[in-house]
Amino acid sequence: GALLAARDGIAVTLAGDEARLRPLLARAGGAPDGVEVAHAPEAVAMGERAARAALRQRGTSIAVGLSLVRDGDCGAFVSAGNTGAIHAAAFVLLGRLPGVERPAAGAVIPAPAGEFLLLDVGANAEARPARLLQWARLGASYMRAARGLAEPRVALLNIGEEANKGTPAAVEAHALLAASGLRFVGNAEGRDLTRNRADVVVTDGFTGNVALKLAEGVSAMLFEELRAAAALSWRARLGGWLLRPAARGLRDRLDYRAHGAAPLLGVGGAVFIAHGSSDATAIANAIRRGAEASAAGLVEALRAAAAADQPPAASPAAEAPPDGAAAPE
Amino acid sequence: GALLAARDGIAVTLAGDEARLRPLLARAGGAPDGVEVAHAPEAVAMGERAARAALRQRGTSIAVGLSLVRDGDCGAFVSAGNTGAIHAAAFVLLGRLPGVERPAAGAVIPAPAGEFLLLDVGANAEARPARLLQWARLGASYMRAARGLAEPRVALLNIGEEANKGTPAAVEAHALLAASGLRFVGNAEGRDLTRNRADVVVTDGFTGNVALKLAEGVSAMLFEELRAAAALSWRARLGGWLLRPAARGLRDRLDYRAHGAAPLLGVGGAVFIAHGSSDATAIANAIRRGAEASAAGLVEALRAAAAADQPPAASPAAEAPPDGAAAPE
Repeated sequence: GALLAARDGIAVTLAGDEARLRPLLARAGGAPDGVEVAHAPEAVAMGERAARAALRQRGTSIAVGLSLVRDGDCGAFVSAGNTGAIHAAAFVLLGRLPGVERPAAGAVIPAPAGEFLLLDVGANAEARPARLLQWARLGASYMRAARGLAEPRVALLNIGEEANKGTPAAVEAHALLAASGLRFVGNAEGRDLTRNRADVVVTDGFTGNVALKLAEGVSAMLFEELRAAAALSWRARLGGWLLRPAARGLRDRLDYRAHGAAPLLGVGGAVFIAHGSSDATAIANAIRRGAEASAAGLVEALRAAAAADQPPAASPAAEAPPDGAAAPE
Repeated sequence: GALLAARDGIAVTLAGDEARLRPLLARAGGAPDGVEVAHAPEAVAMGERAARAALRQRGTSIAVGLSLVRDGDCGAFVSAGNTGAIHAAAFVLLGRLPGVERPAAGAVIPAPAGEFLLLDVGANAEARPARLLQWARLGASYMRAARGLAEPRVALLNIGEEANKGTPAAVEAHALLAASGLRFVGNAEGRDLTRNRADVVVTDGFTGNVALKLAEGVSAMLFEELRAAAALSWRARLGGWLLRPAARGLRDRLDYRAHGAAPLLGVGGAVFIAHGSSDATAIANAIRRGAEASAAGLVEALRAAAAADQPPAASPAAEAPPDGAAAPE
């Protein structure tokens, strides 16, 4: 994936064990121009607790990569690694943007006529209405700066269209969003998520995480079942074979992996988390997203967005790391 | 739908405007044996607020039908009407089973190797852990009595597998379920819902409503997109035509409408809510579900389940109707 991205002219630094990376690069014909290695002696395992990973943070590939961003040597950090550990390390090494209490994990979800950003998808299981408003600002800023939308439509994930639907917190969040100056298009129900009604959909990390994983699960299940149905008879087999290119095109278009990287919004650097099952194409896409976001000045745009609801003299970011308990995987 | 069910030998009473129903029955060749009409001069519109509908409750088809169940003239109530109004009217006319604070709306969701019951799907936007436990008991009792499962597997919808994942309420609910004596299989993540890991999945009505509508939306979107992809070339067109019977079989098998009726659990009668877009087959399936549940003694089984966590002398059901604000549509 890194080599694919490098062919586009993106300068990629690989943070990881040099003794393992160098032979891989040699096998691929040597490191092409713009590909460098930053040695990291350790790695965080996928199942490892964020808190444990933090104890040996400096030496891990996640910490080495994030430090390159912090020090200005790299414009964005991309990883398909342990999400909870990335959240915790980004929180500590990059800090939060002024006024941001809790960064939010976004997921860019494909829909028939485009894509939308869902946040939070699991960094924070609970969310007060004011936090949802801040995430809406960060999300809109992301879609503007990194995805080039002039005025992103923002929706609140809820269980009915009317302003008075949902929990008391949802009702309050609706009111805050309606008064925010954002292009708020109202509540989005579960069935609206596939209908391109909004570019940014905000919700608490519990609902967002369930929704993200459910959408992935239903989609994967349907393609699997369709494949099984296309093996049931000779007619279906032939039909399946003829339809395969079109169905593959559809699957690739709606595959979250192609849309690649999930931005972590609210920390002091561009951080993108790719799906754990990413292939080379997905990694390359994630790196492209990171490079585009960096070139577009994403972090400065987010900094301005985070300051929108703050008093003029914003308080500096505090230093307590998140517990990581609710991190998506 | 009613006539289809009547052909199975089910006695069906149609609650509605006699002046509109009689001509429809005459056009279908007259009312067959076992099909009766209970006149209801009024009807609740689909978009009507539950509170407003309640003001003229006695004369609506929903109230007439529920009264037949309350008075023992019918064994189950089936409707594809206004969900919020059905919830509110059932609450008032049938009362709650002893010990039930808030009835839960279930949805029977198709999965590749069977189906599972998700509850609550929107009757209650918020849920304390003790309520989730009670819904788990009601749900397990439903799958036992009405669906014939000996020992239904119960899961808690959550954002991670471990017992300490999720909100404080989710963690507490996990502990209650683990100690409940139910066959608790632990937390289910969004992606597990399509994997037949549980027969009953409990969650608050906010998350459940989002999940239900999202699963419907993703499924409908994928079938639509597949149809569009199968029109893109002659090859795809031929493939789509050949694959159509198998794809239709799959769609029908995974169509929530075929699985029909969503039980309202915790009220003093068997109440099933069919999807608003139900066709005759879906209505007939819903009526069959109602007849089976009634024959299996569903309400008595639920009564016993609701009493499980109560002190010996259960308090009588209180009489305040639900606000209906969070009712699914």
